[in-house]
Amino acid sequence: MNKEQYIYYLTGFMDGESCFCVALKNQRSAKVRWVLDPVFHVTQHAVNKEILYDIQRLFNCGIVIKKYGQPDTMQFVVQSRKELVEKVIPFFKKYELITKKKDFGIFAEVVEDLNQHKHKDKKEFIKLLKKVFQMNGGGKQRRYKLKDVLESLGSSETIRQTS
Amino acid sequence: MNKEQYIYYLTGFMDGESCFCVALKNQRSAKVRWVLDPVFHVTQHAVNKEILYDIQRLFNCGIVIKKYGQPDTMQFVVQSRKELVEKVIPFFKKYELITKKKDFGIFAEVVEDLNQHKHKDKKEFIKLLKKVFQMNGGGKQRRYKLKDVLESLGSSETIRQTS
Repeated sequence: MNKEQYIYYLTGFMDGESCFCVALKNQRSAKVRWVLDPVFHVTQHAVNKEILYDIQRLFNCGIVIKKYGQPDTMQFVVQSRKELVEKVIPFFKKYELITKKKDFGIFAEVVEDLNQHKHKDKKEFIKLLKKVFQMNGGGKQRRYKLKDVLESLGSSETIRQTS
Repeated sequence: MNKEQYIYYLTGFMDGESCFCVALKNQRSAKVRWVLDPVFHVTQHAVNKEILYDIQRLFNCGIVIKKYGQPDTMQFVVQSRKELVEKVIPFFKKYELITKKKDFGIFAEVVEDLNQHKHKDKKEFIKLLKKVFQMNGGGKQRRYKLKDVLESLGSSETIRQTS
């Protein structure tokens, strides 16, 4: 496999094994209650960790770690906003995904909006929330329901987001 | 993406999303009790079914079906021994897998041996069994334990395999 072929191979591999996630964190006691936290990760059994290091070299960023609580599972993780904006998102704009096309599209929009601090405006934050709940199967796996988060925002004084 | 790039993309995708499985079936009442049944499949949520049809076109064989009992999950399946030997195995000898390299290697050996009817010899069948139990994480997911199957073979008159 030459270098270009390997890039397409890894792109297809990531289309299956990666996740574009935007975690919604509830900081109950903090001034800013709801925080959106985007992360890109690729998960593998530890026996396949070499491919995670190959992916790390491909992006020239991110870390390879053991998954918390699952020592046999490893992840390539990019959580830095700067690295997502400068490396991960441009890569997948060039090498397009197929099955994760929609999730990536939303992820890219959300990361860009967070990067422009749009989340500090309540209306914009609600737009972002709605987008995020359209990802990865419509938020079925999420701890919090969109309805409940929106309700809590209605009565909240501070609807900002850490940048 | 041109055609060659797409082949590498699909190869990487299948490295993540496929399974080279050799089911071990217990035909309690039949003359031949234990049957090894190789199958290659790629599994996706139904919303991604188009890529399964692309894979079907790539191999020019196999079927795309709903997974039994899971209507939201679809599979591209190749179970025909002839198609495995003539289409699937040569493909992955040309376009090599990375994380499933070992499982594919065992799968290819087992399918070839079954194709040559080696399983009709008891010693050869035991060799095949041992190989099969080295696949996909060492048989931890299997219904039957290797030890129990080998024990049952010790007292069995007929250790053949359907061809």
